[in-house]
Amino acid sequence: MTRQIKLGAFLPGGGQHVAAWRHPDSVADGATSFEFHVKLAQTAERGLFDAYFLADGLAVAFGGGMEGGNAKVAGFEPVTLFSALAPLTKNLGFIATASTSYEEPYNTARKFASLDLISGGRAGWNVVTTGSAAAAYNFNHAEQPPHAQRYARGGEHVDVVLKLWDSFEDDVFIRDKQSGVFFDTAGVHPTDHVGEHFQVKGPLNVSRSPQGHPVVVQAGQSEDGRALAAATAEVIFTAHQRLDTAQEFYRDIKARAAANGRNPDHVLIMPGVSPFVGRTEEEAREKYDRLTSYILEEDGIALLNGLTGGTLDLKGVDLDGPLPSAPPTEGMKSRQTLIRQIADENNFTIRELYQWIASARGHYTIIGTPVQIADMLQEWFENEAADGFNILPPWLPTALDDFVDLVIPELQRRGLFRTAYEGTTLRENLGLPFPINRHSVARYAAQAAE
Amino acid sequence: MTRQIKLGAFLPGGGQHVAAWRHPDSVADGATSFEFHVKLAQTAERGLFDAYFLADGLAVAFGGGMEGGNAKVAGFEPVTLFSALAPLTKNLGFIATASTSYEEPYNTARKFASLDLISGGRAGWNVVTTGSAAAAYNFNHAEQPPHAQRYARGGEHVDVVLKLWDSFEDDVFIRDKQSGVFFDTAGVHPTDHVGEHFQVKGPLNVSRSPQGHPVVVQAGQSEDGRALAAATAEVIFTAHQRLDTAQEFYRDIKARAAANGRNPDHVLIMPGVSPFVGRTEEEAREKYDRLTSYILEEDGIALLNGLTGGTLDLKGVDLDGPLPSAPPTEGMKSRQTLIRQIADENNFTIRELYQWIASARGHYTIIGTPVQIADMLQEWFENEAADGFNILPPWLPTALDDFVDLVIPELQRRGLFRTAYEGTTLRENLGLPFPINRHSVARYAAQAAE
Repeated sequence: MTRQIKLGAFLPGGGQHVAAWRHPDSVADGATSFEFHVKLAQTAERGLFDAYFLADGLAVAFGGGMEGGNAKVAGFEPVTLFSALAPLTKNLGFIATASTSYEEPYNTARKFASLDLISGGRAGWNVVTTGSAAAAYNFNHAEQPPHAQRYARGGEHVDVVLKLWDSFEDDVFIRDKQSGVFFDTAGVHPTDHVGEHFQVKGPLNVSRSPQGHPVVVQAGQSEDGRALAAATAEVIFTAHQRLDTAQEFYRDIKARAAANGRNPDHVLIMPGVSPFVGRTEEEAREKYDRLTSYILEEDGIALLNGLTGGTLDLKGVDLDGPLPSAPPTEGMKSRQTLIRQIADENNFTIRELYQWIASARGHYTIIGTPVQIADMLQEWFENEAADGFNILPPWLPTALDDFVDLVIPELQRRGLFRTAYEGTTLRENLGLPFPINRHSVARYAAQAAE
Repeated sequence: MTRQIKLGAFLPGGGQHVAAWRHPDSVADGATSFEFHVKLAQTAERGLFDAYFLADGLAVAFGGGMEGGNAKVAGFEPVTLFSALAPLTKNLGFIATASTSYEEPYNTARKFASLDLISGGRAGWNVVTTGSAAAAYNFNHAEQPPHAQRYARGGEHVDVVLKLWDSFEDDVFIRDKQSGVFFDTAGVHPTDHVGEHFQVKGPLNVSRSPQGHPVVVQAGQSEDGRALAAATAEVIFTAHQRLDTAQEFYRDIKARAAANGRNPDHVLIMPGVSPFVGRTEEEAREKYDRLTSYILEEDGIALLNGLTGGTLDLKGVDLDGPLPSAPPTEGMKSRQTLIRQIADENNFTIRELYQWIASARGHYTIIGTPVQIADMLQEWFENEAADGFNILPPWLPTALDDFVDLVIPELQRRGLFRTAYEGTTLRENLGLPFPINRHSVARYAAQAAE
């Protein structure tokens, strides 16, 4: 089969752009409206997206951060939300973010396995270590745990979750009413994990789904993040401003995956793209300028501060001058570097910088016609920069409708995107293999050796 | 308005009775079938039940325990499941069990607040401290934390959750697109909790629901359990074999609630009842005997062992003789006592005992006609033993259908049960007051004093 672009839809109900909610088309209470999320999911499914993707934070994100903004101070916990959306959709995948730092692996494994069963195999777990200090304060910490420590715990957390997801082999249930034998005890496996951060005996009290277990997703860009992603992730979200850095990341991850003994084709790289779509270039530019005009100065500064680690002091600083330096933090290290890089490479003033990142927050922003946008996606897709993209519509629902109605058909005309879902599970649509239960593998091997 | 009976439906997909799944009517894979749970929820709503209730355990419950049994070794996490059922129902409440011992209060508060928003105010949290040793081993413990320690942490956990649920006042969102003011910062409140077990700065990143916050439910029977329930619970599940012990519990809790400065009418006591309904007494008895005949000896013993704390050794013991003694454990203390009391008061052999508790597990089992069952419910309801009942149909779906089709109409004929839902939120149906946000109360008081 011809290789095709995979697409995730990043659809926070409050809108992606920091001023999205002020757009006349926007549903102002979108972040807390379940009905609005139903509409978004149904539009994404109409557009044949692989998955609905949601970031997550474990604190109110006043103004700043990756998922912050005033319109998003309150919202839904992603797994709970996706579970409610699952029975109202048929093919759309659901990739929810959850933290390895502030949850226990038994609970993480359980809620995602549960969503995976409920949705008939359409769940994905976006693994994050949670870079915000505010989250640490909600979980008994007086200060944020160091970056390296979060990643060490994160790696072990993922390891335990993967073990727990293999608690029940797929052919374990006999359910013979006559004999009273419900399951084959030989097919149920304890976890018996004893590690530096966790002791988990298992087994998990949820069985596997039609896709085996949820798809593992990761978005770390730092050295620690790349190592974790190449070891365990099946889909990797990434933020790049240029084809060459996207290519460097793509080749690096594929090489690391191969070095780990993994098939690089089973590690999908999906950069984020925030598209302003117009029937003409002028119309697209107008849409961008319009949304930019809604940004309040204080919200732009708060956003910038959140994305650079919270240590930037802009009091009395000229917003039409250059970005002052700020000490690095234990938060999202690579995002901090990326934001500075954007400022430097474009010679942006502070105001221009926050206006530019207000939508994509470090991801690629493209302003153009469906043909121009398809050209860019095609170029990255065909030149070792991407296997697909995470689409971040700047405001909702209109910018999502624009992409579905104008860009998707252009990609389909070029044969670059599906015209119907390939399957009913997230793995089938992403073209990822079914993960055979590790205990079944061992059993098959033993049988073959006899 | 005349006081009426409130009803919860305890509907584990795998059936309540330890051998339920072997019944010819049973859906053998009910525990892991989402479609089956949809059917159960819709039947409960047809029966005008106040809420669908689910127990929960954080370990595979091989054979024993409150929620155990072979047919339930694997199932769904309750909040994830209820979230998916919420959009497929309109009035039914959803009371999910969650542990104060093995979750963090920020996560507990968040997932229930999220379910409450998604369902339009139909969520309830059944607070448990988790009495099983197997659960402790899944959360980094080498042994089970002592009963008293679990309750101390439990009380603080509930306290933090209640604080977090009041993070956003109900009139906080302005959402004025023109001015760019999304919310009134004066109406968002940090939690600033510093206690023995938790430090939580807050605020929670979920706003309140149409019913304010989820209904708080509790089921502890021990001294610690009663104290916690009388302090915070709005609905209390309880297990009694006799009217007199139910009355003692009812009066004790109401008095304790009053002593805590609470209105006793806002603390609903709901004993569990497992009904075998027949059009004649003989038919009902036949149903009981039939289900009893499906119990395998080993499953009966496992159940008994689970309910008495896991320290019972029945190897080589005559099952048609009396129950040997066993050392007490740090598990569910009051349940252990209750099971022994049932054995003693009825002079049960081991076999008779596990047959009797196979369905209700310590709750009241009643075998009779709709009139006989309604008589019993009415007697308890009118004599200070109950404000309502938690109905535990022994097997599913038939025993639930029996109750809905035969007993509910009899209760309605007597004016003891609703003929239509009173409202759309769980609180409205239960007749519980809307909890005004604590910060609004303070603000109103300050305004009144001016």
